[in-house]
This record gives sequence, C-alpha cells and structure tokens, in this order.
Amino acid sequence: MKQLKDLSLKELEEFYSQQKKEYQKYLDADITINMARGRPAPEQLDLSDNLLNLTRADIGVKDSAGLDCRNYGGLCGLPECRALFGEIFGMPASQVIIGGTSSLNLMYDYVSQCCTHGVGGCEPWMRNERRKFIAVVPGYDRHFAIAEHFGLEMISVPMTASGPDMDMIEALVGDSDVKGMFCVPKYSNPDGITYSPETVERIAAMKTAAPDFRVIWDEAYIIHDLYDQGDELANVYEFAKKYGAEDRFFMVASTSKITFAGAGLSAMAASERNIKEITDRLSVQVICYDKINQLRHCRLYRSMEDLRAQMKKHASLLRPKFDAVLSVLHEQLDGLGVASFNSPRGGYFISLDVNVGSAKKVGKMCAECGLTLTGVGATYPYGIDPNDANIRIAPSCPSVSELDTAARILCVCVRIAACEALLGLN
Amino acid sequence: MKQLKDLSLKELEEFYSQQKKEYQKYLDADITINMARGRPAPEQLDLSDNLLNLTRADIGVKDSAGLDCRNYGGLCGLPECRALFGEIFGMPASQVIIGGTSSLNLMYDYVSQCCTHGVGGCEPWMRNERRKFIAVVPGYDRHFAIAEHFGLEMISVPMTASGPDMDMIEALVGDSDVKGMFCVPKYSNPDGITYSPETVERIAAMKTAAPDFRVIWDEAYIIHDLYDQGDELANVYEFAKKYGAEDRFFMVASTSKITFAGAGLSAMAASERNIKEITDRLSVQVICYDKINQLRHCRLYRSMEDLRAQMKKHASLLRPKFDAVLSVLHEQLDGLGVASFNSPRGGYFISLDVNVGSAKKVGKMCAECGLTLTGVGATYPYGIDPNDANIRIAPSCPSVSELDTAARILCVCVRIAACEALLGLN
Repeated sequence: MKQLKDLSLKELEEFYSQQKKEYQKYLDADITINMARGRPAPEQLDLSDNLLNLTRADIGVKDSAGLDCRNYGGLCGLPECRALFGEIFGMPASQVIIGGTSSLNLMYDYVSQCCTHGVGGCEPWMRNERRKFIAVVPGYDRHFAIAEHFGLEMISVPMTASGPDMDMIEALVGDSDVKGMFCVPKYSNPDGITYSPETVERIAAMKTAAPDFRVIWDEAYIIHDLYDQGDELANVYEFAKKYGAEDRFFMVASTSKITFAGAGLSAMAASERNIKEITDRLSVQVICYDKINQLRHCRLYRSMEDLRAQMKKHASLLRPKFDAVLSVLHEQLDGLGVASFNSPRGGYFISLDVNVGSAKKVGKMCAECGLTLTGVGATYPYGIDPNDANIRIAPSCPSVSELDTAARILCVCVRIAACEALLGLN
Repeated sequence: MKQLKDLSLKELEEFYSQQKKEYQKYLDADITINMARGRPAPEQLDLSDNLLNLTRADIGVKDSAGLDCRNYGGLCGLPECRALFGEIFGMPASQVIIGGTSSLNLMYDYVSQCCTHGVGGCEPWMRNERRKFIAVVPGYDRHFAIAEHFGLEMISVPMTASGPDMDMIEALVGDSDVKGMFCVPKYSNPDGITYSPETVERIAAMKTAAPDFRVIWDEAYIIHDLYDQGDELANVYEFAKKYGAEDRFFMVASTSKITFAGAGLSAMAASERNIKEITDRLSVQVICYDKINQLRHCRLYRSMEDLRAQMKKHASLLRPKFDAVLSVLHEQLDGLGVASFNSPRGGYFISLDVNVGSAKKVGKMCAECGLTLTGVGATYPYGIDPNDANIRIAPSCPSVSELDTAARILCVCVRIAACEALLGLN
C-alpha cells in the first residue's frame, strides 16, 4: 500500500470511510481492555506462588549470618540477598543494600536525601532554587513525578537508538544547576532500547559541573529478556571506576517483575561513599527492612541460574503478547507513513510514535471503544508531550486475543487520525 | 536500712566496701547480657510462627475487595487491614493507611514531608531556620534522631506521672517556630506512663501559634499490656474533633511487637485532610506497600479479639521478666535514697533514675561486667542527659535468670556510684 500522503483525495476519502466503518464495529462491541500500566499478568504471578507455600521448615528463621529474621537488625539486608543482587548489578555485595518491596521508594528516598541533606559533601539541592534534572524522553512517568515533586525543573533530552542523545547531555551537564538524571539503561521505558556501550561509557566519562550530579540508574528490566539472546548492557560501574565517577551512580532494581509486583524485594547499589551516606540516613529512617520476605526470596531463588530460569518462564508468557501486538502493528501500519514503533527484545513496553499532534486524539478514540492506554503525554515531563505523538503500549496484562483486538483498535484510530489530519478534519 | 546519706562515715565505708566486693564477683564472672534495646525475645517471636506456615490455600491471593495482592495497586492497603487498625487507633478505616513493616519509617516520611512540602497549606518547615520540636524527656532516641536529622531544634519538656508537663508545653506552643512533638501516649518509652485523659485533652485543646503544629502520636504500645487490666488511653481524636484540631495529629502503630519485629505491618491514621496530603505524596513515593504481608496478617489476626489473645501470650512471657527486674530493684534500692523507678503496666521498658551525675558511671561499670544497657543519655535529645541520671532498662530479650543477674549488677553499680558521690571519690 502507498503512504497515505501519496493517495489521491478520492483514494484517501475511500480509505477514511472504510476505517470509520471499522471503528464503528469496535464502538458497537462491548470491549474493556486495559493496557495502561506495566503490570504482570496473573499467569506471571502464578510462577511465584511457591513463595506463598514456603513454610517455617523450608526457610528456617535465620540468615546465613545467624541473624533471626523475625527480629530487628540487619539494616542492609541478608548477606545472601545482597550477594544475589550484587550479581544482578555487577557490584560487590558490600555495596548493595536490600530495601522494602519498592525500588520506586528507594529512588524517591534518595532524591529526597539529595534535596534535604545533599550528597558528596555538597549543599542540599533544596537550597538551589534553579535545580534541574535531565529527563530522557519518552520516559517513565513515575521518574518524572519524583523530579517534579522535589521541584527539579526537567529538561527533556530525546532517546536515540543507542540511548539518550549524549551530545545534548554533555552540553547540559556543563551547568552546575543540572543535578542529575534518571536512566532505564536496559529495555528503556517505553522504547525498549538498551544503551550502547559507548553511551554507557559517555555517561560515566562526561564532566559534570555539579560535583553532586547523580544518575539514578534504574535497572528495572535488567534480566527481563523476551528472547534467549537478550540485549547486553555494559557495566556502568566499571566505566565509573575508569573515570573516577563512582559516586555519580545510584542503582536500583527489584523483583516486582520477577516474583510479585509490589511484594517482592528491592535493592540499591552504589559507591562505598554513597552507601555510607545512605546507611547514615537509613539508620534514622528505619530499624530494618522486611528480612522474612528476603529469606523467602533467597530460599526460592538461590542463584542467578534460578533467576534466569524464572525469567525464561516470564518470557514464554510475555513473548506471544509482544508478538500479537507487533504483528498487528506491522500488518496495519507498515508503509502508511503514519507511525513508527520499535520491536524490543525485553522489558514491558512498545513505544508507538504517531503523527505529530494526533496522539491525544488516538487515545481518546481508543477510550471510546473501551481500550485504556497509558495516559497520552505521560511519557513526557509534566505529562505534556510537546509533539503529541508518543503512545506507550503495555502488553503484559491482557490476554493474547485481547491484545490482538486492542492493537487493531489502536491501529484503526491511528489511521483515522492520520486521514483526518490530511483531510483537514481536526 | 537507712538512706545512704544518713549513714555515719564508718557505716558508709563499710557498706561501700561490701558493694565493691560484690561488684568484683560480677567482674570475675563471665557475663554477657544485652539489655540495650526493646527487642522481643525469641519465644515471643515463636508466637507468630504461624505466619510462616500459612500457604496459598490458607490466604488465597485476593483481598476482601477482590484485588490480587500479588500485583500492583491498593496504595492505602487491604480494606480488612485498614479496618483492624482502625479499631486499634479508634479511627474510621477510611482514615487509616497501611504502610510497610516500619512505623518509624512512616514517622520519618511524614516529618520529611512537613519539612520539604509543608502541611495544611503552610510553608515547608525547611524554610524556617528556627524550626523547633518539643522533646518529651526522657523519651525515645529514634524520635529524637528524626528531629535532629531534619534540623528541628529540640526543646526538652519533662514527663510527669500523668504525661508531659502540659503547663510548659502550652507555653512553648505560643511560639510559631515550634512545629510539633513526638508522643508515646500509652506506656511511654521509657517511663511506661500512660497519659491521663486530662493530658490527652489538653494536647488537643491547646492553642498553637503554628497552624501546622503536628503531634506524632506513636501508639507503639497501644495494646501491649502486661496485666489483664491495662491502662486506658483516651481517644485523642475525639478530643481533636471537639476542639477542631483534627489536623494536629498523625498517629502510627505497628505489629513489630505483636507479630515479627521489623517484619510485621505498620499503619498510620489521621484526619481526612492529612490523609489526602499523605496519599498525594505516597502516589509519588510508592506504587503500593506489601499486600501479601497484609494478607498473611489479616488471615491470622481477623479481629481485635485475635490480637488481644496474642497480646495475652506476649504478656505471659514478658510479665515474669519485668517482675524479675522490679523485685531486685525493690530489694536492692528501696529506702537507700539513691534511685527511683516506675512499675509500668505495659510497654517494653523500666526507667531508672539514679543520683544526678552518676548514670554514665553506672553504665560504664555495668559494661565492664558484660552488661550492656541502652546507651546512657540516649533517652535525651542529642544523647545528652543534662542530669546524667536516667537509665532505660529493656527487660524483654534476656531470660528471667539473666535479668535477675543483670538487675543485681545494675543495683550494685548504683550503690557504688552513690557511695562514691557521698565519699567524694568521683
């Protein structure tokens, strides 16, 4: 098929009319599909139900250091958990702290600490009225929400196929008011892009005017491959050591999409100096995190091999879902010149870019059919996509047949919006 | 026996010499006893081992609203958990939020929010360089640590037999820089005093110059009675409603000393307006807290009756320990005029006041025998007891026979310090 813009007016009107009929079909059907958030499907959660069936006899009550996990103590977490997350991060266990169930909470708390107390011996960020943060776009709305909450003015930097636009970032960090950035370096949210080794190295190597510049390195999808051969992410801390930028990085991960969402384990890793600052704060904030949950997790997942095996099971459930969406997108949109999208090899999202100025219209039309997408704009700071073009697709939760329907609805809406733009019907 | 100060010099020297011999016995013995913190004993933790033996079949995965607890969602917690904590607090379930495992963390986060964002429409506390907090003394070192961490200058107000000195507090809150106070209103830490209804009412009724004055109402020992007839604490929120001071209070509690310490449930309760401000912040900070742990707790403890039954079991383990310490204190110290102490009807501590200027010496002498007390001074802001007189005794963890030994060591040290003061041997 020709690109829509190359159709004659008659051809375009005919195509538009067909799409409207198709859309009406979906409007008439009784559809309710939610593709808004990156939630695991119930079948994925079933994969970890053994966590619910472990008994006292299975887990004991003591960790490898002999600490009774039913009692206070062990601020940094179980040695065996720290070792396992150390492997995930590629960091020494001594530089890993196990948190509660939420890595978002760890990021919030760290940014809060930077704001109220400062890090690296520098003044609290709060004292700087011009404090800024780099926002890689499209990106994760909850990252942006933390920056906004703490009054960090966000400066958007676009993603490229190899990670954020590093030329722009290297220029921006020359401003000492620019205090940091959030990164999802592997299977980025929503693009599913893994930063290239060059990008990772440049983030470690760049000269920042702010000595307390911090990169929140959110390894949300660090072992979340869809295929046997996953993307490889370079170890940023190795580069950090090479360039003397160890303190720049604050890494987090969680098992929310490995075991239970919101009831798994979170963990953070950083330089010795950062870990010292964090434990100084934690010693005021909390006596210890939930060591029983740590014990359960470490008894069931004793090694990286155990985790990899679990992730293969997740992949076998998720892959057909990504495939279902992508095959419809290809079938319905390829060649029309109205949209572009990626084919991620892991993570939880597909990012769809439609014609400038039409994403909100597409979102609204989908909603009218009963299909809920991630709030259009959510992938940009302050919820405003300046191009009104990006749509995040979260295929994990609906069934394959629902996803087929959802993708078809989405595509017909994209086609209609494109026709109306060309026909001047806005 | 006469008071030490009424002994003749010869009598005193003889008594001192006997005590030194007694002390030497303990020095020569190989003793290691830790009475530093209010940790539950292993037998208390055993009382909740059923939490470790619940299976998926026992708990299901859905809460009473049908939410899958293995997945994201439910920011405020399970309805059944909120209802149960509502009963504990004497608050509507809709004004209760279930947190993670740590009520300390909830208090830290709330003070942090007051500092960075302000509450009640007022400016952030951080903007006020003269911000102050009332510290009831003796009190809980972790409360003081939060205030210190956030730069709240602490003003000490002494405890009385009916709660903090309200005349002093009513005078202090006339200063708009005085932003709040921590209270442990039932079985206070360390005195074990329950605030009288008059005190509770005055805290609700008092006029505070700061409209954003906040009372952190830490109900750490709210159902932690040692005897069948426990102290009664008046419902502060009823008084708050009477005086239009609903927003003044932020209440927390946890099951750390009901189920597992550091692995139970925490909860907070407050006015509708406060809860709205807190959920606004939480919606940035966390997706949800651990609902699986909530589910486990609510399946095992379905009602206040279940909790009361559990607390009776705790009391039967704790009571002999308090009795062991108190009987030695009475036997060894009564009538000497060198110390005073309370006999709490609940909570986790006994507070011992020794002669002014001798608590540190007593702590050091105990340590030399292998007996670790709570760091002397810890019950005062900045770790400094201006009278050097208060010693917190935490009898929960050691065995009854260890406690007998510990109390005897403590008493001989108190006697020696008193003799040396009278003999001018400092």
